[in-house]
Formats: sequence, C-alpha cells, structure tokens
Amino acid sequence: MELKRSETQLIEAVSTIITEEGFSKIGINKIARTAGCDKVLIYRYFGGLDGLIAVWAKKHDFYIQAYDTFINRIETVNEANLKQITKEILLAQLHFIRENKMHQELLLWELSGGLKFKAIRDLREENGHKLQKILEQKVDTKDLNISMYITLLIASINHIVLSTLEYPLFNGIDFSSDTSWTIYENTLCDYIDMLFEKFNR
Amino acid sequence: MELKRSETQLIEAVSTIITEEGFSKIGINKIARTAGCDKVLIYRYFGGLDGLIAVWAKKHDFYIQAYDTFINRIETVNEANLKQITKEILLAQLHFIRENKMHQELLLWELSGGLKFKAIRDLREENGHKLQKILEQKVDTKDLNISMYITLLIASINHIVLSTLEYPLFNGIDFSSDTSWTIYENTLCDYIDMLFEKFNR
Repeated sequence: MELKRSETQLIEAVSTIITEEGFSKIGINKIARTAGCDKVLIYRYFGGLDGLIAVWAKKHDFYIQAYDTFINRIETVNEANLKQITKEILLAQLHFIRENKMHQELLLWELSGGLKFKAIRDLREENGHKLQKILEQKVDTKDLNISMYITLLIASINHIVLSTLEYPLFNGIDFSSDTSWTIYENTLCDYIDMLFEKFNR
Repeated sequence: MELKRSETQLIEAVSTIITEEGFSKIGINKIARTAGCDKVLIYRYFGGLDGLIAVWAKKHDFYIQAYDTFINRIETVNEANLKQITKEILLAQLHFIRENKMHQELLLWELSGGLKFKAIRDLREENGHKLQKILEQKVDTKDLNISMYITLLIASINHIVLSTLEYPLFNGIDFSSDTSWTIYENTLCDYIDMLFEKFNR
C-alpha cells in the first residue's frame, strides 16, 4: 500500500524530533507541528501515538525488520548453511546498530527506563523471538538449547556499540580503531563456530 | 588510613543523591548540603569533585574494585585454575551489577552520554585493563589473544542486566525468572570452557 504524503511526513517527523531533540521529546502535538499536519491524522492513519511509533520502529529497529529480511533464508536453509546465516544475522545487527543513529537513540532511551513506547519492545520481542524459534527448531538437540547462547552474543553487540559512542575504550580496547571492530567481528564469528561445533557433537 | 567522619559523610552523600535523584544531579553544592559539611572540605579531602567521585567509584564500581579483589589470585594462579578464576570473575561481575543499584545507575548514566565523570571510566579502564593484561600473559599463544573474547562476554553481562531492569524480556527470554539467570550463567561458563579449549589446542 502506498503511503499518503501526510503519512510519510508524520513518520519522518518522528525521525526529525529524535535526531534533533531525543526520544523523550516525542509527543502527538510536537509530531503534528513538525510534520505540518493536523494531529487528527495521527489517530486516523495510525490509531494514535503508539501505532505511529510502531510503524516508525519497523523502519528503524533492526530486530523488527530482521524478521522480514531473514525469515525466508532461515526457513529454507540447510544444515551446512545454518552457521553461516547465524553469523550473517549477528554481523548485520552489529553493522546496523553502528550505522543507525536512530536505532542507537532508541536503545539508549529504552535503557534509561523509557517504557513510554513499550509497543516497540513488544514488537521486537515478538519478531526476534519468531526468528530465534525457527533457528532453534533447526539446531536444538535433546539436551541443548541454542537460544541463550545467541542471546548472550546479541546483548554483547548492543553494549559494545552503545558504550563506545561517547567514550572509545571498553575493557582496555580502543573501539575508535577499525582494527578493534574487525577483531570484535572475528571473535563473534569464532564463538559461533565453537557453538555450532558444540551442537554438532 | 581511617576516614574522618566528614569524609565518610561526603562519600555517603554522593550515594544518597544518586539513589534519590540520579547521577545527573551530582554537584559540589548539593553534596556539601546533603552531607551537612562545608564544600571547602571536598577540595581539602579529595582535591575537588572528580577526586570525590573517584573515591566513591572505588567503592561502587565492580571493575575498579575487582582489581584489588582478584589480582593476588590471578598472579599466583596455575594453568589448571585459570579457567576457573576467569569464570569466577565474570560471575562476580554479573552478581555485582545485578545487586548493586548504584553501579547500574552509574553505567546507565555513562551510556546516556554522561562524560562529566570521565575519571571513573578512566579508572575502570586502567584497572580492568591491568587485570586483563595479567590474564593475557598467562593464556595468550603466538597467534591467539584472549582479550577480545573476554571483552565480548563482559559487554554481554552489562547489557543483559541493564536492559532487563525495566522490561523483563530480552530476545524472547524472560529475565524476571531466576531460571533464565541460571541458564545465562551456565551459558557464560560454557563459552569460557569453549574458549580455554580453543586456547589449549
């Protein structure tokens, strides 16, 4: 469905406010004013603020859009490619967060206790979870469940990116250097190799 | 050296302000008022606000105090115990962050871009780094460096704790349940097992 011009303007207004003033400043009136639309349209098009934010998040949250990007490949993957696609998804997450200022702002704002847009986390959990469930069906053995192993790595990616945005050192490593990021990526892939070796035993 | 009563009061005032109003509210005047001391004492005892915060951080930041706690054991450890002590340090970090509200506040405030007390991160980097360097001397081979492998796990611990403080789900796992934390700890230890296996090859 093609979006109406004012729908697009409202979604872009959310991005503008986040970029210029931060997540905490988002509100119905401010969005309408920034978009140059009547606030009634936010209710008409999106059913309200939560609905608009959910549509915005689909564009800017990695795990919400990852489902659409990777679901076909995960569903049709064979055993030999499963390790490879797991690496690809986690590296895609790393690159997405590093490059997407808006996703960084969203995660930081959530960490600071912002539950105003709980809908975004609900949506992310729903989609991230579905992707993971399909991976589990392919990989899990009777005694081993891969879910927490992947979750641990995902959490690491988020934290390394967020905690080195303003201060370059983390645990003695200088993340203002590209070399450090390359080593981090190799380390991530190494853990995935070890993990799949464990699950194939 | 025994602390003077007013020194202790000033350090405790920092904790009080953080607990009641958050990190961003810390300032010389407010600390002096809360402690019921003259602000001149902050300069006399600690050389200023950064100095006071650094002393406070030594009490409340895991990695700043971890050095003192673990340095003797790491220095005298033999090869068979090295894996065990690595697990102990990371689990101690996890328990410390989960239980220490003030350390959580500090990390969240740093993530939100608070570089006002850069001295704390400098101190943490200095100490965390020293601990890691000693571990590296014991473990590293010609082609393999353990530093990034440990760093990746440390980042994961921070993020899982911080991102589940207000919202219990992370990647489809419910961290309001003790079982999830037990599985997380086992997963962390499993990765350390895999890691030491790799380094012993």
